[in-house]
Amino acid sequence: MELLKEKIKQDGIAVNKHILKVDSFINHQIDPMLMQEMGKDIADHFKDRNITKVATIESSGIAPALMAAAAMSVPLIILKKQPSKILNQDLYQTVVTSFTKETNYELTLSKKYISAEDHILIVDDFLANGEAATAALRLLRMSHATIAGIAVLIEKSFQPGHEKLVSQGIEVYALARIAEMSENYIKFQN
Amino acid sequence: MELLKEKIKQDGIAVNKHILKVDSFINHQIDPMLMQEMGKDIADHFKDRNITKVATIESSGIAPALMAAAAMSVPLIILKKQPSKILNQDLYQTVVTSFTKETNYELTLSKKYISAEDHILIVDDFLANGEAATAALRLLRMSHATIAGIAVLIEKSFQPGHEKLVSQGIEVYALARIAEMSENYIKFQN
Repeated sequence: MELLKEKIKQDGIAVNKHILKVDSFINHQIDPMLMQEMGKDIADHFKDRNITKVATIESSGIAPALMAAAAMSVPLIILKKQPSKILNQDLYQTVVTSFTKETNYELTLSKKYISAEDHILIVDDFLANGEAATAALRLLRMSHATIAGIAVLIEKSFQPGHEKLVSQGIEVYALARIAEMSENYIKFQN
Repeated sequence: MELLKEKIKQDGIAVNKHILKVDSFINHQIDPMLMQEMGKDIADHFKDRNITKVATIESSGIAPALMAAAAMSVPLIILKKQPSKILNQDLYQTVVTSFTKETNYELTLSKKYISAEDHILIVDDFLANGEAATAALRLLRMSHATIAGIAVLIEKSFQPGHEKLVSQGIEVYALARIAEMSENYIKFQN
């Protein structure tokens, strides 16, 4: 999506080979009009997939996922992070290990909001190692729903997340794909 | 706002005198069309206040705040929760004590996103004790910005949050005000 690529070129900061800061329009300060356009773009890409619900992981995925859900007129489900590990029979639960933050957390989903008849689109802000997306997949599959695909705003294509998901038969749609980065240098993948 | 009151009557669950569950349309599953209407209602209420930015606290305030910011065409700032207490000179920081969750956390705001010229509208999902809103106010005031008001979807008017904020000269706008609750009973305030 050209609009996002232009914004990344203009306001994104490539700190080093791995860290891209998009604090000024995606993470800390959000540009709602850009978010709305990105939501429409995602909805348009998946328009023939009979999506019944959008799912995301709290909290940085909420903004793009909400705009995608609004563009599709379907509900948004927020997969909740919980520090506790208390078993609850009303919830699907799975443990996620975050390498970047060096912590464990539990991702939960209330059983009543997703059924086997649903077609789910997962939306998140970033795809890098794919640990959050893989956990979301694992959790959503417990409901036997169909996973229609995963949409992310920015993919770091040089990290293994994309390949991990595609090898499981999941369609990955990224609005901007970064092939390579270094300090003050960003190369997009075509 | 009648639409929200109707939805609360229909799908909200008053568990006891204090707990209202709105998991099915506000917290866990989100109704994006309702969220959009609520965002427009908030934008309309504050249309003469020259709002330059909307601010919210991650993560349950993000959805209504994003829709309000979109309706106003202004940026949204997400005040970030951090477990760590490392001082950082690029950030405004304040500690919040959550009585409901019995934890402490730090709320942070990057200095570069808010200035003394800004007119800020704070948007959140719930107002009860007012601890999160008070912390957001404290944090935003460090930037010397003007606080134009606080908008919340649901106010528990029988708890002290509303009074705490109004006594500081802050306008509080709630889309639904609950005067009284008990198991399976909700009385709205006019």
